[in-house]
Amino acid sequence: MRIGIIGGTGGIGEGIALRLSPFHTVVIGSRETEKAEICCRECEEILQGRGFSCSLIGKTNQEAVDFADFLILAIPYKFLVPTLKELTGLDGKVVVSPVNPLEKTGEFFLFAPPPEGSAAMLAKKLLPSSAKLVVAFNNIAANRWRDLENPLEYSVAVCGDDANAKRQVIELTGTIPNLKPLDAGPLGVAPLVESVTPLLLNLGKFNRLKDVGVRFV
Amino acid sequence: MRIGIIGGTGGIGEGIALRLSPFHTVVIGSRETEKAEICCRECEEILQGRGFSCSLIGKTNQEAVDFADFLILAIPYKFLVPTLKELTGLDGKVVVSPVNPLEKTGEFFLFAPPPEGSAAMLAKKLLPSSAKLVVAFNNIAANRWRDLENPLEYSVAVCGDDANAKRQVIELTGTIPNLKPLDAGPLGVAPLVESVTPLLLNLGKFNRLKDVGVRFV
Repeated sequence: MRIGIIGGTGGIGEGIALRLSPFHTVVIGSRETEKAEICCRECEEILQGRGFSCSLIGKTNQEAVDFADFLILAIPYKFLVPTLKELTGLDGKVVVSPVNPLEKTGEFFLFAPPPEGSAAMLAKKLLPSSAKLVVAFNNIAANRWRDLENPLEYSVAVCGDDANAKRQVIELTGTIPNLKPLDAGPLGVAPLVESVTPLLLNLGKFNRLKDVGVRFV
Repeated sequence: MRIGIIGGTGGIGEGIALRLSPFHTVVIGSRETEKAEICCRECEEILQGRGFSCSLIGKTNQEAVDFADFLILAIPYKFLVPTLKELTGLDGKVVVSPVNPLEKTGEFFLFAPPPEGSAAMLAKKLLPSSAKLVVAFNNIAANRWRDLENPLEYSVAVCGDDANAKRQVIELTGTIPNLKPLDAGPLGVAPLVESVTPLLLNLGKFNRLKDVGVRFV
């Protein structure tokens, strides 16, 4: 499985790369190749220090798309539209969205979806119709992804309309130790998955907890 | 603390009564006193069979309001407006809403809030301005409340605008073994807390799991 991480030099993207690259071929995409290459070398050092061999490749976002069958949109919500408008060649590929549209009012975080109802539905509108969009990895903080000292003891709600692509994402998630993927249903469920993230941010803020995550039990 | 459960003969209401009455004075309210009394006797039998003494009282919903300082709206969303329109004397009381507005489309569950944004904001509009509304207990299935064989190993997200009332609800939640209350912020966070429930129903449906709950970790 060839995995490309769009925005792979950001916190979430780098963390996902660290977790996946011991088991899969991962391309870190960035707006600038050099940034992606630096990130790859850093990740490789971290992983080699922990006894993992890995094959990370630094590329532009477009090169990551061209290389991989499996793309992860590790970008902040505000970059979703410009990023997807620039990229070509996503036809037929599995595209994973961990993107959460949220806002902070003075005091707390809220779900702030576009008129489409979710970041995922907005992404779907911008993707070629043959791309297979799957929502996953929305509710895990960047710091936790990167904290290789600790396994990710979380559930991952996965939703999407293409049963085969959803199954692949569930299997991929299952290769990361301790993560527990769960089928959350079709893509229409995306607002509910994305909404969990501002709730987790509020729970962190109002209880002085860091990087709160979720387990469905 | 005198607790009144509005709609206390329904699954969630009965379950909350079973969990709280060993530690607090609980009045089960219903539209019909007789139904409430039958429910109380059943609960008492269950609890006495487990070595708990308890003081459950069966009343009408209005009598429950008159008796208690602390009311729990254990009613389905569709009964929220008619129930609150009928009741008087809620002034100054703490009112807990575990109510979730949701819909099932053909295939999956969605959050379906009223124009106010959440069941809680709708309730607030109908309550006297001195009532202190707190959102809690939204994400635990009725069957789990009633299953006294097993402790409730869940988190409870609690939100509200009255700091003192919210603290009381957090303390009350903490008296139920293993439940872990967390401050989720002001009442504006209610849509995020209520949205978790349709997500849990979807996770149950698509993974053939029963009564899925949530832990924030």
